[in-house]
Amino acid sequence: MSAPIVHGGGITAAAAAFGGSPEDWLDLSTGINPCPVALPDIPARAWHRLPDRHLIDEARRAARDHYRSGEILPLPVPGTQSVIQLLPRLVEAGRLVGGTNNRVAVTDNRVAVTDERIAVTDNKVAVVSPTYGEYARALTSAGFAIDAVNDVAAIGAAHRLAVVVNPNNPDGRIWSAETLVALHDRMKAADGLLVVDEAFGDTDPTLSLASRAPQLSNLVIFRSFGKFFGLAGLRLGFAIARENILERFEDWLGPWAVSGPALSLAASLLRSDVSPIHSRIEERSIGLHAVLDGAGLRMAGGTALFTLVADARAGDIYTHLCRHHILVRKFDYAPDWLRFGLTPDPAADRRLGEALQRFER
Amino acid sequence: MSAPIVHGGGITAAAAAFGGSPEDWLDLSTGINPCPVALPDIPARAWHRLPDRHLIDEARRAARDHYRSGEILPLPVPGTQSVIQLLPRLVEAGRLVGGTNNRVAVTDNRVAVTDERIAVTDNKVAVVSPTYGEYARALTSAGFAIDAVNDVAAIGAAHRLAVVVNPNNPDGRIWSAETLVALHDRMKAADGLLVVDEAFGDTDPTLSLASRAPQLSNLVIFRSFGKFFGLAGLRLGFAIARENILERFEDWLGPWAVSGPALSLAASLLRSDVSPIHSRIEERSIGLHAVLDGAGLRMAGGTALFTLVADARAGDIYTHLCRHHILVRKFDYAPDWLRFGLTPDPAADRRLGEALQRFER
Repeated sequence: MSAPIVHGGGITAAAAAFGGSPEDWLDLSTGINPCPVALPDIPARAWHRLPDRHLIDEARRAARDHYRSGEILPLPVPGTQSVIQLLPRLVEAGRLVGGTNNRVAVTDNRVAVTDERIAVTDNKVAVVSPTYGEYARALTSAGFAIDAVNDVAAIGAAHRLAVVVNPNNPDGRIWSAETLVALHDRMKAADGLLVVDEAFGDTDPTLSLASRAPQLSNLVIFRSFGKFFGLAGLRLGFAIARENILERFEDWLGPWAVSGPALSLAASLLRSDVSPIHSRIEERSIGLHAVLDGAGLRMAGGTALFTLVADARAGDIYTHLCRHHILVRKFDYAPDWLRFGLTPDPAADRRLGEALQRFER
Repeated sequence: MSAPIVHGGGITAAAAAFGGSPEDWLDLSTGINPCPVALPDIPARAWHRLPDRHLIDEARRAARDHYRSGEILPLPVPGTQSVIQLLPRLVEAGRLVGGTNNRVAVTDNRVAVTDERIAVTDNKVAVVSPTYGEYARALTSAGFAIDAVNDVAAIGAAHRLAVVVNPNNPDGRIWSAETLVALHDRMKAADGLLVVDEAFGDTDPTLSLASRAPQLSNLVIFRSFGKFFGLAGLRLGFAIARENILERFEDWLGPWAVSGPALSLAASLLRSDVSPIHSRIEERSIGLHAVLDGAGLRMAGGTALFTLVADARAGDIYTHLCRHHILVRKFDYAPDWLRFGLTPDPAADRRLGEALQRFER
């Protein structure tokens, strides 16, 4: 059993420790749009019936048009987490299919290792770090050795898999399409795989590799549906890759992996006009920045959906905000960092600003 | 890639082949309650936020009381399918933890086989058959050899895992709690695991092993939420087992595996009065039986949610019903079987009856 990772969203635990009812807390610990879109109607059959091919295909076509993935129909998955859990299996399968040395026997997806050296010499994966912790957890748990590299330049032929979160969480670093395509080509030359997680990519679609994906055989892109639309409870994401990879994910997830309501909402919302969502997020981001600026906090990075603050007093600020029933995100590995999600409205901006001002005094 | 299994619910494909709009078809190809319960209110936060611990715990407590699993808090999973996919991993882990011969090296969940004989001598699993096809598919795909046994009596020390669907799909066979506890004890004596799938167990709760589960260390029970409540689109099931097994599933599924709306509905509906659902299913079952009886078809088994018909003309009846835009379930392995799901109302009974009468003439 690997240790669970502390994620944002732990309002219940925070309220248990610092008092107050969870509903009264201001939760700034996630990167989810705090202004959810209005829910379109969900037909009764989406709840009642097993998700039919027709519903799945509708959602896939809407995702293709929204993400501009060309001939690729993105695969709906029950949250990016579900496919992160499958990456170890995909890397094993890729090694078997693509490798030049047949040191392993295989019956479809099962690996029977006939040469022990493979576990020693061939299990290195690179994760551009620090980043979302579930990649390292899932890969370590499956026996891979993680190289937590600081930049894509440090990734090379020794790595079976490279993971880049773009823009990165929590620091908001971005890599250009050219840099990532070059990385893909390096990975491909050694039968490796590149995963680009665009979970926070919706607010700047120009960064996305989706439109290049049809030409990049060793690339997998993950998209998150819930963060941008403010519907994280839905558990929906999309994987964008060539058909041979998507077929494996589909096979391993099994039939009906995604709920009918999620597919129905995706089919509607991915075809809707998202410009009001962009405007609202931008307005909220400006509000948050003004509060942090007013409190004299140094903004060290972020995306439109969250802002990273670097401050030597971060631990104390975190506790102080908890006493005001405001939850932000702290990081074990970077004790001077705090990540602030967007506030839902100007009243919450004021509440945060007043709490921060009391810390100053 | 293993071949996909044809399941019920393929109305889109059937309509493409036989005409008509999918909405106008009468779908009797599944075992889902055709009269879904009214949806309780789903709080906005269940859609918006990542499923919080509080919501998960509420659903787990409601499931414990509903399934009467004593000290075990059933684990919500995104459909039984998601945990069927994890069975190969659980069997491997069980072998490593519980086995007496350490012929494998392991880093937590990863198996590095150092002795090839293990693949030959130690990979047999038993599935009481014929039954739901996804067990054999997931296990075969992972390199296990399936013994498709006809009865639990044929399962023994050679099997790492035994799968019993109770009541069985599609023939409705049932095994008593005593028989299954004895099977569990045999499996346990050889460090094996027993999986009892109670997907169709809701209509006869007295059959369930759930209340005995706290005392049975090598047992895993799967429950389906959507079939009985008529909410199959929700993708929700529960696993009932001792904590060490549930923790593994939880770890492998990763955080937030189940959607907020699903957890919210489970917490409400599993605490609601389900007697009207039982009555309605019974009424519909009586209606279906009268139609099948009136058509002179021999009922060879089933549960309250579906009826199995055995008839030498099954293939022709299937095609005839498709021409009337009625979809039932046929079976490659048993060409004289047809499975009829419940009709939603007396009008549908009449429609089915009239279509069957035309076949007679």
